[in-house]
Amino acid sequence: MEISGGLAQQVIDPDAVSETDGDVYRGLSADAAAGVAIVSTRLRRHDYAATVTGYLSVSYDPPTMLVSLYGQSRIADAVADTGRWTLSLLGTGHRGIANWLASPGTPLHGLLAQVPFRRSPASGAVVIDGALAHFDLETTAVHEAATHLLFVGRVTAMGRGANGDAAADPLLHFASDYHRLGARV
Amino acid sequence: MEISGGLAQQVIDPDAVSETDGDVYRGLSADAAAGVAIVSTRLRRHDYAATVTGYLSVSYDPPTMLVSLYGQSRIADAVADTGRWTLSLLGTGHRGIANWLASPGTPLHGLLAQVPFRRSPASGAVVIDGALAHFDLETTAVHEAATHLLFVGRVTAMGRGANGDAAADPLLHFASDYHRLGARV
Repeated sequence: MEISGGLAQQVIDPDAVSETDGDVYRGLSADAAAGVAIVSTRLRRHDYAATVTGYLSVSYDPPTMLVSLYGQSRIADAVADTGRWTLSLLGTGHRGIANWLASPGTPLHGLLAQVPFRRSPASGAVVIDGALAHFDLETTAVHEAATHLLFVGRVTAMGRGANGDAAADPLLHFASDYHRLGARV
Repeated sequence: MEISGGLAQQVIDPDAVSETDGDVYRGLSADAAAGVAIVSTRLRRHDYAATVTGYLSVSYDPPTMLVSLYGQSRIADAVADTGRWTLSLLGTGHRGIANWLASPGTPLHGLLAQVPFRRSPASGAVVIDGALAHFDLETTAVHEAATHLLFVGRVTAMGRGANGDAAADPLLHFASDYHRLGARV
């Protein structure tokens, strides 16, 4: 049902991506709503953890997920090194944790001093307490994509949070803000 | 702040992924909330379009996105063929369109007879009318991941929907159902 009438667009010149292009893209892509998660890994007795919205369930067969991490980040280095990572899907009660682990200047020591967590029995990695669900993954492929690395992984273990069924209340990110889920439509 | 106490897990044997593993994973991964979008492309005067939740903004520099499509699907074939795709981010008013374009048996002819759309001035691909935002992409890499193909693309053009600023009301998918966005937390 084609509608006539214009559609305003900003076209990007591939040979000269401007600062304005980047700013416009930031604004528009912020409208891609996403559930918020924590990615974690354990390397030489240190726990690494960071807030992510750039993750996906890719396949059911075998269970496969993906996380996109900024290539120059400590968490990307650690995940590249261990070849293992764990995702905890956050609920609305985790807003403070999401904020904390999203800050660029988080310390390596004491990172999780104020963050209630348990350890995955299978991997030993951090699982945020009360997560809606968590997944242990083993990296099967790493792909470069612009400034980021895409880690594709096979799920090796999975479960709900410790409370069993907090699952009605995911923490969402939309337009640079945290939200709860609204009514069914 | 490590908490003692158990965390129930299902461990997956990599050499024997069972049907139960797949079912448990389906249930848990459904808790990954996501905004809903339509991916479209135009090939030999036919329009292809399908509902997706498996997409990401990957990078700001240059603007880069990713979509994960089932490898055996018509839309994956079409996107692989054209090397171009367009994402329309849906609002709550698009629930019927999301349902329709998610059905496995959609026809090739008349696919969009009941779907109000405009064409991207830059690519000619379908942009769902009233989308929160839309992006034209040119594929820069394709990666196999289990049953799916990951298409990574560079943004070549972008804009809001025709109405300018419908952006407060994204359509969300969570636990196999459509929802609206709730209050800020």
